[in-house]
Amino acid sequence: MHPLITLLLAATFIPAMAAAPPSSNGIPLPGNYKFWRLIGVSHRDDNTSLRAIVGNTTAMTAIHQGRTDPWPDGTILGKLVWKDSKHPLWDAAIVPGKLSHIEFMVKDSSKFARTGGWGFARWVGMELKPLDNEGGKPCFECHKAASKNDYVFTRPAALP
Amino acid sequence: MHPLITLLLAATFIPAMAAAPPSSNGIPLPGNYKFWRLIGVSHRDDNTSLRAIVGNTTAMTAIHQGRTDPWPDGTILGKLVWKDSKHPLWDAAIVPGKLSHIEFMVKDSSKFARTGGWGFARWVGMELKPLDNEGGKPCFECHKAASKNDYVFTRPAALP
Repeated sequence: MHPLITLLLAATFIPAMAAAPPSSNGIPLPGNYKFWRLIGVSHRDDNTSLRAIVGNTTAMTAIHQGRTDPWPDGTILGKLVWKDSKHPLWDAAIVPGKLSHIEFMVKDSSKFARTGGWGFARWVGMELKPLDNEGGKPCFECHKAASKNDYVFTRPAALP
Repeated sequence: MHPLITLLLAATFIPAMAAAPPSSNGIPLPGNYKFWRLIGVSHRDDNTSLRAIVGNTTAMTAIHQGRTDPWPDGTILGKLVWKDSKHPLWDAAIVPGKLSHIEFMVKDSSKFARTGGWGFARWVGMELKPLDNEGGKPCFECHKAASKNDYVFTRPAALP
């Protein structure tokens, strides 16, 4: 089926959009993030969490066109983070347990020039409590390790 | 932004669709699977692979309406599977390495009555080589462990 038709069909089913107060540095929650396409997944042993990484249309277009160094203004990358849980029917499978938080990186090279051109925002738990992240400074400190990749840790996963 | 608007905007960016021969049991590759929404993720230690689970519109509607036991006919669940890789900048993070395969469960309770109402299909590697899976029998043998959940291992991950 042509993706355009899929998208129009998908539009016939519109779930409730996520809503929450803006982050402490004024970034609004992207209420439609559940419709964003998948960029990758990860599992972190240091804090026992599973992650899915998703992107808005600007992000997906940038990936498709190979323009991710730097990512264009307007890019939003989302990370959905759950605590590890064991699958009740498959011992060796780690699956999403309780939601830890959802977080986003918003590219605006002038507005967020002091933190590498990225605005960082996190909402904690199913109640989506905005995290007071001191304007994203501690996020940026950590993301400096990926400075050669425009401060983004995620590499898009291979998909045919 | 309203999801409908998002979908229409997304339609302005249509990447190439995946194409491959049908599976050995005649199931066509859902060429638009990269547009499907996320259901969950998992990490398997027994075969060191990371997985993303996605669903077509019928699947997502069923989840939203709590009608997943049994899943309705027309449901397609997709599993995208990569071999483990270590993140080059973050030792404790496992990230997608080489694509292992993509696989799908197609619900058609009459057509696939002999395998729990599900048709199983797998395409291997970036070249999407259909796996000869003996009509899904070995897949079904393993999925019998989840017979109380309509043969589906995946539980939708919590998202606000």
